[in-house]
Amino acid sequence: MDQDPSEAPGYDAAVVDLLGVLAYGELTAFIRMAADCDVAPTLSLKSQMGQLATTDYLHYQQLSEHMVGRGIDPEAAMAPFVAPIAAFHERTRPRGWLEGLVKAYVGDGIAKDFYREMSAFVDEETQGVMQGALEDAGHADFVVQIVRDSIRTDRSTAGRLALWGRRLLGEALSQAQAVAVEREAMAALLVGGGVDLGEVGRMFTRLTDNHQRRMTRMGLDS
Amino acid sequence: MDQDPSEAPGYDAAVVDLLGVLAYGELTAFIRMAADCDVAPTLSLKSQMGQLATTDYLHYQQLSEHMVGRGIDPEAAMAPFVAPIAAFHERTRPRGWLEGLVKAYVGDGIAKDFYREMSAFVDEETQGVMQGALEDAGHADFVVQIVRDSIRTDRSTAGRLALWGRRLLGEALSQAQAVAVEREAMAALLVGGGVDLGEVGRMFTRLTDNHQRRMTRMGLDS
Repeated sequence: MDQDPSEAPGYDAAVVDLLGVLAYGELTAFIRMAADCDVAPTLSLKSQMGQLATTDYLHYQQLSEHMVGRGIDPEAAMAPFVAPIAAFHERTRPRGWLEGLVKAYVGDGIAKDFYREMSAFVDEETQGVMQGALEDAGHADFVVQIVRDSIRTDRSTAGRLALWGRRLLGEALSQAQAVAVEREAMAALLVGGGVDLGEVGRMFTRLTDNHQRRMTRMGLDS
Repeated sequence: MDQDPSEAPGYDAAVVDLLGVLAYGELTAFIRMAADCDVAPTLSLKSQMGQLATTDYLHYQQLSEHMVGRGIDPEAAMAPFVAPIAAFHERTRPRGWLEGLVKAYVGDGIAKDFYREMSAFVDEETQGVMQGALEDAGHADFVVQIVRDSIRTDRSTAGRLALWGRRLLGEALSQAQAVAVEREAMAALLVGGGVDLGEVGRMFTRLTDNHQRRMTRMGLDS
């Protein structure tokens, strides 16, 4: 982009939204993964799911502290996203441990892709804190192996999880669209920041491609 | 004590048990507090409960790494305590947010008192790692204020929570006794390490006194 993103009208409001949705997403992911940790079938898996959950909470904390340092009230910034994120989780309640695992891996991947895309439109400082929250040190990789092992001997589970993955993507995109309509400043950051609608379309194509790659990695049709 | 505790017969087995129960207790507390975080009524309270949960997971992780470094298999060490800790949580399912809060505060307090007592009987290295897991940086103090505020205008809740606190103590002591019967080495560390039964009785008195102090701090009869 040619112009300084932070000069655009409504930029500050857009950054508040972005940090808010990112922070609340991490806090909710923490809660959901801790619930998956509760139903994990072995102590080793509990330990690994707990690690994922804790990493999410620590990301939430970094984002929250960054907001406070920038004079942004984290709770006010997160509030608009409570309903759409709750709706996403309400509509995608995992039935059992494996669906929870796939949701953790796929949902986390979609969210991170989206934030990675959005971080191209923000100032360097915001970029830094967003990228910090995107790091996961590969803790989720164990999921791939578990899913692969589970479906090797059970093709009906493979079919069910493939459908599940499609539903997760559909619900995520549908909630993202609802948020975009509701939060004008954030949408304007994307479209107003010199991004044409064709580019937005390509962004969605990239998100979908990455989702398919993740499904393939788990051995699932997408 | 006059003699080196680590010279006592069965000492190594006792330390494995102690580290195992402490680690599994932290892992379970993490899961339970994350569930409380889910039902917390405000974003600020979610954030604070999440902080408590995350601290517990990080303690679990330190204990687990310490065990690995000492050649102890953490999963094998934790395994004997899965059933009694699950029984405790099964028998003390909080009904609602306030009971969850009181359980977090009181349960955590009882567990920490017990580990503090036990840490007197172990070698310095084990003592160090146990004390690290006992640090909570006062994160639980917000609980006291919330409970006090809630019962100021609602005496029937105060009565219910007082009963709840008594039940938590009773269930904790009953599970601790079941564990002591089951895990001879750990019990022997206490009694065999030059501690007479009168001292064990005094330890239980101290645990009960501390529990009563915590209840009083929240404004509850004990």
